[in-house]
Amino acid sequence: MKLTVLGIGSASPQVGKNPSAFLVSFSNEHILIDCGEGTQYRLLEKSIKVSRIKTICISHLHGDHYFGLIGLLSSMNLSSRKEPMTLIGPEPLLDILNVQFVAANTSLGFELNFIKTDNSKSEMLFENKTFSIETIPLIHRVPCTGYKITEKEGRRHLIPEKLPENFPVAFINLLKDGEDVTDPLSQEVFKSLDYTRKGEPAKVFSYCSDTAYNPAIVPIIGASDLVYHEATFTKELEARAEKTQHSTAEQAAKIAEAAEVKKMILGHLSSRYKTTDRHFEEAEKVSDRVEMAIEGAVYKI
Amino acid sequence: MKLTVLGIGSASPQVGKNPSAFLVSFSNEHILIDCGEGTQYRLLEKSIKVSRIKTICISHLHGDHYFGLIGLLSSMNLSSRKEPMTLIGPEPLLDILNVQFVAANTSLGFELNFIKTDNSKSEMLFENKTFSIETIPLIHRVPCTGYKITEKEGRRHLIPEKLPENFPVAFINLLKDGEDVTDPLSQEVFKSLDYTRKGEPAKVFSYCSDTAYNPAIVPIIGASDLVYHEATFTKELEARAEKTQHSTAEQAAKIAEAAEVKKMILGHLSSRYKTTDRHFEEAEKVSDRVEMAIEGAVYKI
Repeated sequence: MKLTVLGIGSASPQVGKNPSAFLVSFSNEHILIDCGEGTQYRLLEKSIKVSRIKTICISHLHGDHYFGLIGLLSSMNLSSRKEPMTLIGPEPLLDILNVQFVAANTSLGFELNFIKTDNSKSEMLFENKTFSIETIPLIHRVPCTGYKITEKEGRRHLIPEKLPENFPVAFINLLKDGEDVTDPLSQEVFKSLDYTRKGEPAKVFSYCSDTAYNPAIVPIIGASDLVYHEATFTKELEARAEKTQHSTAEQAAKIAEAAEVKKMILGHLSSRYKTTDRHFEEAEKVSDRVEMAIEGAVYKI
Repeated sequence: MKLTVLGIGSASPQVGKNPSAFLVSFSNEHILIDCGEGTQYRLLEKSIKVSRIKTICISHLHGDHYFGLIGLLSSMNLSSRKEPMTLIGPEPLLDILNVQFVAANTSLGFELNFIKTDNSKSEMLFENKTFSIETIPLIHRVPCTGYKITEKEGRRHLIPEKLPENFPVAFINLLKDGEDVTDPLSQEVFKSLDYTRKGEPAKVFSYCSDTAYNPAIVPIIGASDLVYHEATFTKELEARAEKTQHSTAEQAAKIAEAAEVKKMILGHLSSRYKTTDRHFEEAEKVSDRVEMAIEGAVYKI
């Protein structure tokens, strides 16, 4: 699993900064989390195959987190996408899309499976062979959920030197899937545990934007290998953070420390800040788990 | 009056091309025509004061012509705009904006005066001291209107050497406005025509995108100093142009020639074309009034 940071800007547009968009990638598919204006152009610039985005999660309906969605879906449709798309987000999102599709006289050539979020609780909303998606209830001025993406434990690795010669390939795949195999001729039983070792451990990425300081998320994000957390303000604007239901860098760092996450990256800084220095200074005092997120960077999870 | 070309891309996103957006500028205000995704970032990059955009005209509700509007209006609101905005476009546009403002719990801090277009006829929809806006009915898959912007004849120029010494400034302004002035003491009459000469002639810019070949617009755009016309296809795809209700470069050039416009610039090329060469060749054979539009260029009208 890897994370590509497509945008970490906040609501006011800034030259050289893009609004929120994050791509979580597996070997053969992507999850897009949030989709600020222009996200489809960022994907294009990075030569990311949008046909491989099979799931899109929208945290909340402030424009800097979703105004690029209608454009991305429209372009997917123009490029004759047939693959279904799972879309997860707040309930009004589907109406917002539909009123625009109707105005353009567009019928989507692919299925849009919409799953609505409920930010009163954490729930598992999607699961396939590779990963699961749970919500993280956040506190913001409009209903807002973060997302916890868990990449499942990898397939077991074969220990080839233990196997007899000419062992059938079909049997190997079963062993890797953890199943025991009986040879139909000899009736000999090959136990998966004897011929394979543990696959890659499960990995967790948590996305927490936008939110007021919210220690209630600590038990949910606790096992995360990487967390993206918003840090709109510095300490001197803590009152403003509370009023607008955003976090300070220090508050985000407190969450990182309490949840003992492996690494937390901070973004969504207010456009009033010209550098990330003060945010980092304030966060660093509380936790050495915290870094400033870098737009365009790819993080291996 | 000048035209800044912010985007001439067509529906499929392309690296380094932006979807439709055009800024018509006067000394102290701008009109934005169409507002594809990312337009607010183009304006920001060019340091254009968005507070001076007082009118926005949307041609039709295909995404490459308006998906950037909600973001631009939201950002104007975030920056505490108070100045009213006139928005001209197809009727469903207001609903599309409102459903998004409601979801974001946003009430605009400025008045949004919406004027709906009716593409069954050409009408004068807006007029102030500086310019007027008329619609140009276009033929497309959804209701679509072009816009004809007429900059009014400039204020008359004073001929200072004709005036008596110490002539009051207040009187000068009246003369420039074309009014005759009577000196309250001497009762002497100063005729505007005697002391001023004609101001700048009226100038006309016409915007025609998207449209099938439509000679009915010729009498409307006839007096134009500059026309932007779409030219999605080359001649070999004329059947496709007809089906999708777009124009070929040759068809656009025929319009330029029939309307005897001073200059026509072509854009909105299908993303299948990597250069503009074939479009230009085909247009040039029909009319020497035609050039290819250049993204980012500023045209003095």
